[in-house]
Amino acid sequence: MVTALGLVPTERSAVEAAASGVVCCAPLSREPLGAEDAVVLARILKAIADPARLRLLSLVAAHEGGEACVCDLIEPLGLSQPTVSHHLKVLVEAGLLTRDKRGVWAYYALVPGGLDALAAVLR
Amino acid sequence: MVTALGLVPTERSAVEAAASGVVCCAPLSREPLGAEDAVVLARILKAIADPARLRLLSLVAAHEGGEACVCDLIEPLGLSQPTVSHHLKVLVEAGLLTRDKRGVWAYYALVPGGLDALAAVLR
Repeated sequence: MVTALGLVPTERSAVEAAASGVVCCAPLSREPLGAEDAVVLARILKAIADPARLRLLSLVAAHEGGEACVCDLIEPLGLSQPTVSHHLKVLVEAGLLTRDKRGVWAYYALVPGGLDALAAVLR
Repeated sequence: MVTALGLVPTERSAVEAAASGVVCCAPLSREPLGAEDAVVLARILKAIADPARLRLLSLVAAHEGGEACVCDLIEPLGLSQPTVSHHLKVLVEAGLLTRDKRGVWAYYALVPGGLDALAAVLR
């Protein structure tokens, strides 16, 4: 991961971008997407372009309080805990989920505005 | 590609789904995404999770009349014609671009409502 200092557009932290509510760029249909913005946007889309990760996002969002631990996600997904943890890590690194370690378990929630910002770019 | 007959959810034509303005499913945050819908949605997202294809969508949308031929797209993208044609084919198969052969060239346009439908699922 890159640090807050020394960011260049192609390496900008997706977490930072999504959490700010601005994934990277203007809506695709408004103006031609620049090469560097396209790399940033493609990286975030790759993180969600997976059936298990889409279901995880949706399960976390629909869970009571908008927050879920790995222990809540294994059974509905039907995958092993290491596999679920791997997919959750990809979503955290893409700036779409937050992770909060409390006691034995880590709890995951949607980054506020993260998916909305992504949707806004596609419109 | 599958035909209009004999479709099963996991093999549903993305073209048909996007063109109908309903990519596959309810917004991710409204209810848990089913396993079969997740496969359909991931396939469409994989088609756009690529810097060159994102730029192509955006170039086509921003082009005069919302339509462009391969000949308009090679120079701004800086890729060879076979490579651009390959990426365009992926976007057509994902239901995001239409292709209209007229004379020597094929002309591409956004499928109306295709990207909007995708954005609506992410919200």
